[in-house]
Amino acid sequence: MSDYKAFRVETQDKIAHVTINRAEKVNAMNADFWTEIIDIFRWIDETDDIRVVIVSGAGKHFSSGIDLAMLASVGSELGNDVGRNAQVLRRKILQLQASFNAVDQCSKPVLAAIQGYCLGGAIDLISACDMRYSTTDAQFSIKEIDMGMAADVGTLQRLPRIIGDGMMRELAFTGRSIDGEEARQLGLVNRTYADQQALLDGVFAIAREIAAKSPVAIRGTKEMIRYMRDHRVDDGLEYIATWNAAMLQSADLRVAMAAQMTKQKADFAD
Amino acid sequence: MSDYKAFRVETQDKIAHVTINRAEKVNAMNADFWTEIIDIFRWIDETDDIRVVIVSGAGKHFSSGIDLAMLASVGSELGNDVGRNAQVLRRKILQLQASFNAVDQCSKPVLAAIQGYCLGGAIDLISACDMRYSTTDAQFSIKEIDMGMAADVGTLQRLPRIIGDGMMRELAFTGRSIDGEEARQLGLVNRTYADQQALLDGVFAIAREIAAKSPVAIRGTKEMIRYMRDHRVDDGLEYIATWNAAMLQSADLRVAMAAQMTKQKADFAD
Amino acid sequence: MSDYKAFRVETQDKIAHVTINRAEKVNAMNADFWTEIIDIFRWIDETDDIRVVIVSGAGKHFSSGIDLAMLASVGSELGNDVGRNAQVLRRKILQLQASFNAVDQCSKPVLAAIQGYCLGGAIDLISACDMRYSTTDAQFSIKEIDMGMAADVGTLQRLPRIIGDGMMRELAFTGRSIDGEEARQLGLVNRTYADQQALLDGVFAIAREIAAKSPVAIRGTKEMIRYMRDHRVDDGLEYIATWNAAMLQSADLRVAMAAQMTKQKADFAD
Amino acid sequence: MSDYKAFRVETQDKIAHVTINRAEKVNAMNADFWTEIIDIFRWIDETDDIRVVIVSGAGKHFSSGIDLAMLASVGSELGNDVGRNAQVLRRKILQLQASFNAVDQCSKPVLAAIQGYCLGGAIDLISACDMRYSTTDAQFSIKEIDMGMAADVGTLQRLPRIIGDGMMRELAFTGRSIDGEEARQLGLVNRTYADQQALLDGVFAIAREIAAKSPVAIRGTKEMIRYMRDHRVDDGLEYIATWNAAMLQSADLRVAMAAQMTKQKADFAD
Amino acid sequence: MSDYKAFRVETQDKIAHVTINRAEKVNAMNADFWTEIIDIFRWIDETDDIRVVIVSGAGKHFSSGIDLAMLASVGSELGNDVGRNAQVLRRKILQLQASFNAVDQCSKPVLAAIQGYCLGGAIDLISACDMRYSTTDAQFSIKEIDMGMAADVGTLQRLPRIIGDGMMRELAFTGRSIDGEEARQLGLVNRTYADQQALLDGVFAIAREIAAKSPVAIRGTKEMIRYMRDHRVDDGLEYIATWNAAMLQSADLRVAMAAQMTKQKADFAD
Amino acid sequence: MSDYKAFRVETQDKIAHVTINRAEKVNAMNADFWTEIIDIFRWIDETDDIRVVIVSGAGKHFSSGIDLAMLASVGSELGNDVGRNAQVLRRKILQLQASFNAVDQCSKPVLAAIQGYCLGGAIDLISACDMRYSTTDAQFSIKEIDMGMAADVGTLQRLPRIIGDGMMRELAFTGRSIDGEEARQLGLVNRTYADQQALLDGVFAIAREIAAKSPVAIRGTKEMIRYMRDHRVDDGLEYIATWNAAMLQSADLRVAMAAQMTKQKADFAD
Repeated sequence: MSDYKAFRVETQDKIAHVTINRAEKVNAMNADFWTEIIDIFRWIDETDDIRVVIVSGAGKHFSSGIDLAMLASVGSELGNDVGRNAQVLRRKILQLQASFNAVDQCSKPVLAAIQGYCLGGAIDLISACDMRYSTTDAQFSIKEIDMGMAADVGTLQRLPRIIGDGMMRELAFTGRSIDGEEARQLGLVNRTYADQQALLDGVFAIAREIAAKSPVAIRGTKEMIRYMRDHRVDDGLEYIATWNAAMLQSADLRVAMAAQMTKQKADFAD
Repeated sequence: MSDYKAFRVETQDKIAHVTINRAEKVNAMNADFWTEIIDIFRWIDETDDIRVVIVSGAGKHFSSGIDLAMLASVGSELGNDVGRNAQVLRRKILQLQASFNAVDQCSKPVLAAIQGYCLGGAIDLISACDMRYSTTDAQFSIKEIDMGMAADVGTLQRLPRIIGDGMMRELAFTGRSIDGEEARQLGLVNRTYADQQALLDGVFAIAREIAAKSPVAIRGTKEMIRYMRDHRVDDGLEYIATWNAAMLQSADLRVAMAAQMTKQKADFAD
Repeated sequence: MSDYKAFRVETQDKIAHVTINRAEKVNAMNADFWTEIIDIFRWIDETDDIRVVIVSGAGKHFSSGIDLAMLASVGSELGNDVGRNAQVLRRKILQLQASFNAVDQCSKPVLAAIQGYCLGGAIDLISACDMRYSTTDAQFSIKEIDMGMAADVGTLQRLPRIIGDGMMRELAFTGRSIDGEEARQLGLVNRTYADQQALLDGVFAIAREIAAKSPVAIRGTKEMIRYMRDHRVDDGLEYIATWNAAMLQSADLRVAMAAQMTKQKADFAD
Repeated sequence: MSDYKAFRVETQDKIAHVTINRAEKVNAMNADFWTEIIDIFRWIDETDDIRVVIVSGAGKHFSSGIDLAMLASVGSELGNDVGRNAQVLRRKILQLQASFNAVDQCSKPVLAAIQGYCLGGAIDLISACDMRYSTTDAQFSIKEIDMGMAADVGTLQRLPRIIGDGMMRELAFTGRSIDGEEARQLGLVNRTYADQQALLDGVFAIAREIAAKSPVAIRGTKEMIRYMRDHRVDDGLEYIATWNAAMLQSADLRVAMAAQMTKQKADFAD
Repeated sequence: MSDYKAFRVETQDKIAHVTINRAEKVNAMNADFWTEIIDIFRWIDETDDIRVVIVSGAGKHFSSGIDLAMLASVGSELGNDVGRNAQVLRRKILQLQASFNAVDQCSKPVLAAIQGYCLGGAIDLISACDMRYSTTDAQFSIKEIDMGMAADVGTLQRLPRIIGDGMMRELAFTGRSIDGEEARQLGLVNRTYADQQALLDGVFAIAREIAAKSPVAIRGTKEMIRYMRDHRVDDGLEYIATWNAAMLQSADLRVAMAAQMTKQKADFAD
Repeated sequence: MSDYKAFRVETQDKIAHVTINRAEKVNAMNADFWTEIIDIFRWIDETDDIRVVIVSGAGKHFSSGIDLAMLASVGSELGNDVGRNAQVLRRKILQLQASFNAVDQCSKPVLAAIQGYCLGGAIDLISACDMRYSTTDAQFSIKEIDMGMAADVGTLQRLPRIIGDGMMRELAFTGRSIDGEEARQLGLVNRTYADQQALLDGVFAIAREIAAKSPVAIRGTKEMIRYMRDHRVDDGLEYIATWNAAMLQSADLRVAMAAQMTKQKADFAD
């Protein structure tokens, strides 16, 4: 595991804990952030003894979103021709999107633990996670609208699959801030906790539970839910049939069955 | 109406009541179950004087899901070649899926009435129904994860269209059991009832209400909602325009209009 | 701004207030309604200094849906050949759909303010709006089922993207009436208000807030959410990258940035 | 039938002959062209006794494509803000596209008869027709590449469905001119003729043949082929089943059957 | 293998030869035809030692299409209500489509050998086959247009994926008859033969060649090409990766490798 | 430009010439090949003064496809659990696919120049190029079928969009070898040349022609054709409108216009 500048990465109990580690900057997403997150999730993807991921923010806040200095540096790459500038910007946006695609496409479940501010780009990030948990007083806001732009690294693409259409539009048009409790009612977070410690304890408990399941089964389950976000029911049925044609030949079914019969905890290989 | 081994099928007031009838086995889904359900829903589909279907489970529980003996028998069909085994398994999964596709594609509304356990394959089944109602203390769990496999007969394909993405993933990854009240809050069931009798009374009341509507209108309505689960809004608009091009020439509009003007109950042909 | 027969259209603070103005007919949607609404929304679309739209109904009710006289006139156009009648009906339905498509595709956010009855065609209309707000005692019903027909101008196509699948089907099959409070719980409306005046005050407050944002950013945000209703996440990411390739070259980002730094209100060009 | 400035429209034998009528300008597509073509095809669509359309160009050439004066006038609408310019341009392009969409979506078959130059926008136009016929020495070129732009009114969208992918790219990247014979080999035109008179005679003969068929059957056939350009086979099968559910109740089947048995020409109502 | 009334089914060299066996009726497709073809292809699908299928017609002609007596019998099922008739017709069309879907979805390659007339429904049939071969003087015609109807059992859905769009429309609108040679140029048939004997010899030679390949590889290849007819390239790549994740573990790769190294013919298990 | 082991990369006249450089191994695709090709095409993508790419093979043959040693090394990574092996294989296949996706998604046109053998994986490669040109006696074969596997790095996904469905299946099922002339007739290659020198001269001439066009226009054109391979016509029209909203503000239109008026060659910035 390399040294990261924008993150702290720890592992325990087959869980990778990925913490945005720029508390002094309200965990604003700088250039290091955008490149390191790709490396981290590639490493997670390829490391068999990691089974679950928790993403959190160091300090009082989860993250204030994209670092403004970074935005400014993009502007400095532009020239005089609108068409060529458009190509530069399009490539840049696709690169930033790739950072959160790495989270979305990670083959292990990713749980976000959110306290304090979760603004702008931070919403894009948590929309790419599997599940979200927060403190009751966390603050969520689709801040991009107040920067004079439409959010372009995932919020407008993924969040409408997570919360209802009507409130989605209100939050995106107004940038209105909601707290953890309203976020829970909208389905944005699954559960709220009284404070940051309770939050981390709770999220780790869920993560440990998932880490104890068959990794083959978890991976298939995640792939299928991810697939259904964008595909038809009939295609999804055909896909799982093809997928399970191999996976049902895994030893994990026998391990699970044996565990059930002996009333013991199943112990699955990585 | 044939004699069924795994089901009891009764009709009254243009409603078919399909009961899984293996209470002594917690209504586990055995080989009979999977083949008979296709015959039953084909018969319902072709029988004009059935307008609504209720699916329930005999005894204290709705169903504990797939019968383990059945799973074992699939294993016994496998040989030494992984590729050929994969073809056998893929075909088998597609066959099981076809059983619940018959429910999903039934041209009449299907209401599930759920009490007690509703586990594993039972979630796949109710995900293929139009609406779900339960007792307050019913227990729902995506149990497949504890069998070392990704659910492959419909839960992972249809449930994400019914409940929110975030909680969908939590339930699928952890297999956590939820009761009727939480199920209602998630949108998994439309309403909960104090006990099994109140549940059946309530569901029959809704079914009778639907059975009194124009069957031409109900069929079109179901087809359109089913279609929208997988298609674009513009395609859906074109489809209903083509569909109603014929159906608006039905007598049912005049019958309905006359009933409204005379303040009497409309009596629609089957 | 022309004179309309079925509507009253007023503008203030960059907000167009479009009121169905046939209170004496419970705002039933007559022939004028269906043609004028297209003109109104085309005008809104092309008028740069309108940034937000509010749709409401004059008098005690939002709207009772399609005018029955209009339905009858369609019937009078039919002849003896079923096939040719089907072509006439199909074309007619597509025309009516085009009226609400004009609302759906409007490039500015459209807020519906609903009191009293909101029945049949009125549900089709509000399903084509961006957000919905109502009085607590408003009454919503998918009335078409009691006219012996499947709703064909948008409810069955757009509403399943707004409220949960299970309750969607129950409401469409039974035509059951729900009040503002239940509508809010289902996600059909974003918020309820004690009475009509509080409703209009509340909706205008939200509209003013949106009107103060960058119109370039609002337009992009709306286009992206609309796009995601029918497209894949990867297509959506590519689309916003292409869209923002031009829009990030707009002055609005600098205006927004300057406002944030000076803690002043941003003033965006139309 | 109105007077048109850019077109001459004649009807005979249930065929509308639409001629681009600016021979002195090589039938360049000016502002009149783009608006009148929408009116013409709307009128054709609604006029029951027109069953087939022929599109041709007056004089020695079919058309040299978009009028440069028109392009220049678009430029004059632009201001200083790149984002707002982008909105103006996007709207303008969508408007021009709408002109050829009217051809594409016309419910009657449209045959293009092409001689001489068929350049740039003219390729966009003929790509929106059902079938294309030309003189042997006609000259086709995707000229937009030499104007420094990607073709944006239909060529790049529709032509790949008509000719093979490999040659499509070569022609689009190089703007290479091909004659009628090569166009026929590529599937761009169905047949070539020695000269313009033979071309028109030949195309009229095909048009008359189509005009003698059941208009209900022709319309359904066109709709289905158009639909398949963008949809799945299973969706297409479901769509024709829904469509023909009405259309097979038309008298045209009996008329056709009677004609076959009496060996006489069928005479179908409009 | 059962006795069939409309077909003769023979097997040799792992090839099933399915012959439409109503030469005295020009192999018109009667009620027996439509039901038996489903049984035959289900049996083929489940019978491991059949690897390839040849479909042909007994006597001088391949088939004249649907039997008119059958069409008439459908008409006799209709009543007075247009809406209910539409439901009967829709269900009937879907049933007929299911017959050719059985051919299309067969997991083994299906080769059509065509001589003489191949009209109407026969085009629908061969469009559902994998490859088509004919005599030079075979006669193909989309005859439905002359029956006053749009073809509804597959021609308009599958043929546009096989031949070019422009000529597809001409043939569908005019019903023009083309011979084997023109069919070959259009890509409708892969090769033509001088006479019926040469045709069968040629098709059997190709079938034998395919039958000698790995059945696991052939099945995967067919599934992938079938899949690509309706899916995106990226989905197709993901699908084959999932599919081959199992199939590359088959022994067939080693068998093939060994055969290549020993320069001997590979002998694959069924 | 780095040193590559499997390739030789040269640039001239804004053209990158990428040559597979393992003539002594018939240009078999080894491990170096699969990783270096990604680096090369990323570099091409990011290097503005490269406008066109030519892919060719050193020596007498284009390429014999995947290196068997590489296949063997994959086998050695497998263990005992079928499910975990499936995950290893699936990941490996996706990695190999990524190599040719880099070619497919390159923003500059890619021309393949093919002589001698073009077998197995080589067909996958050229299917990912924009256009293909060959010597008359080149030999093409979908060789995977004789390795006991379905092709899984692109042939079965991309080639059906390039050549006709019927012959596609024959070639994939039989592995039959075709020469350059038949390949041209099928649309697999655009043109054939007498020998390798004439081939390279011809392909360079086309490449130079493309390199002289506006790079902004070429990039947009390629993106649109690529997009249409997988999207609907209406989506494609909306996409180009959004794309050109920025690109029509480029200077290249003025440069092109000026060149046309002065009858001089346009000189576009990179």
